[in-house]
Amino acid sequence: MKVLIVSAHPEPRSLNGSLRDVAVRALEAQGHEVRVSDLYAQGWKSDVDHADFPSLPTEARLAPAAASKQAFESGTLTDDVKAEIEKLLWADVLILQFPLWWFSMPAILKGWVDRVFAYGFAYGVGEHSDKRWGDRYGEGTLAGKRAMLIVTAGGWQEHYSARGVNGPIDDLLFPINHGTLYYPGYDVLPPFVAYKADKLDEAGFQAIAERLRGRMRTLATTPPIPYRRQNSGDYLIPSMQLRAGLEDSGASGFALHAEQAEARSPGGEASSMRSTMDVRAATA
Amino acid sequence: MKVLIVSAHPEPRSLNGSLRDVAVRALEAQGHEVRVSDLYAQGWKSDVDHADFPSLPTEARLAPAAASKQAFESGTLTDDVKAEIEKLLWADVLILQFPLWWFSMPAILKGWVDRVFAYGFAYGVGEHSDKRWGDRYGEGTLAGKRAMLIVTAGGWQEHYSARGVNGPIDDLLFPINHGTLYYPGYDVLPPFVAYKADKLDEAGFQAIAERLRGRMRTLATTPPIPYRRQNSGDYLIPSMQLRAGLEDSGASGFALHAEQAEARSPGGEASSMRSTMDVRAATA
Repeated sequence: MKVLIVSAHPEPRSLNGSLRDVAVRALEAQGHEVRVSDLYAQGWKSDVDHADFPSLPTEARLAPAAASKQAFESGTLTDDVKAEIEKLLWADVLILQFPLWWFSMPAILKGWVDRVFAYGFAYGVGEHSDKRWGDRYGEGTLAGKRAMLIVTAGGWQEHYSARGVNGPIDDLLFPINHGTLYYPGYDVLPPFVAYKADKLDEAGFQAIAERLRGRMRTLATTPPIPYRRQNSGDYLIPSMQLRAGLEDSGASGFALHAEQAEARSPGGEASSMRSTMDVRAATA
Repeated sequence: MKVLIVSAHPEPRSLNGSLRDVAVRALEAQGHEVRVSDLYAQGWKSDVDHADFPSLPTEARLAPAAASKQAFESGTLTDDVKAEIEKLLWADVLILQFPLWWFSMPAILKGWVDRVFAYGFAYGVGEHSDKRWGDRYGEGTLAGKRAMLIVTAGGWQEHYSARGVNGPIDDLLFPINHGTLYYPGYDVLPPFVAYKADKLDEAGFQAIAERLRGRMRTLATTPPIPYRRQNSGDYLIPSMQLRAGLEDSGASGFALHAEQAEARSPGGEASSMRSTMDVRAATA
């Protein structure tokens, strides 16, 4: 397979840098082709602004979505953005790798999403009417490809558990996994999360590296998070609300948007998305 | 009161620009002092990197949290970051105003958080031991102050409702409201959200502007989201998991971390955080 890793840490000699190298070596050892977008090393421009749309007249008002649509359709996006789009179309698998800062991506990676996920490419795809709200959430340009997060967090796993004070990790990552990756069509694999990132000794690092190698070996076979497809019939149109009665009893919030019953293991926890279970299984 | 608005849209002639002006005028009309950090106009630097820590030797490995701690304690943060910290200490109320891009903040605002919320200032505050996990989530440097989001979204309100395909707006904003604003101590008010942002006619804009003026008039009196304080006894230490039995039956995910029973209105919806109800009440 062809794998693109988009990496977002300012220090190559960091845990993130080491885990990236582990992932690249593990993938190449299996014969996969790997490309890396190292955003800091590339000097990635983070902020959407007028300069992103060279064909927009200098004095024209910048409406980001409209400008993105026009530039994508006319082929006038900037070269750095075009290069990333080309990589996304090349890759069978996209991996976003980053330290969790304030429970989300570092700005440089958010800026990669903001700029590369153009209108007509990652959103605004397909028919938009009262009968169909576009090709998104399981359909779209990137459908048939896989995506996955590799995340480091300073806190403890318990702090990110179903009742942990930070909130469950799957819910914290939902705006990325569901809202950013599933939206343009990716099948999203359970995330790889390394906790206590600032407290690792060599043995702790080796354990995490070995767990990551395991995930890289199963990249093609790991079942994706079973998010519901927008156009599968589960959602009312145009209100896009989940039909009544489809969910497990007790499901609410983000968990509604994954099919759960068949994925729940005996004795599974209240937080029933597959990803949590898989991450824990991988930890054990 | 003193109010700081941090604003993050690249186009002054946008809905965000207009709403910012509405907010500033409404606040000043009540005699409040208002300062605005217009991140695009300031040319804000988004990305945490080595240049943020001038006292870190050039060849030294950059560990962002450790570098932030050292720079904050020694007074060697960069001038742009120091200026924002000074504004945060000055303000009684912080308002973050932004368009919702990929279900989160634009990169430039995330970069403001990443850089300004320094170790020792916004995190890493207070005793950290097996008996106490710092002053955070309701305590910390910014305790006693209020914070609030003003957000525009392209989608429909129904798409962000309790069963909407995007996920409930309160859950999508939880990493910001709870994880970023409540964390260093702010009392967080229910967010102001304007939907269908790209489809507004003049009457639609005026209705939203009037609703925003209402929120600005009640800035001092609106009850905050009743998040649970970390050190109130509701959480086990050091696992930081919510004790059993404190929540409403049926609550799960992020909703566990707000006290709910007394806030639920008769006939309230499954999504029971106060903010949703307040936003709807304000809409009606």
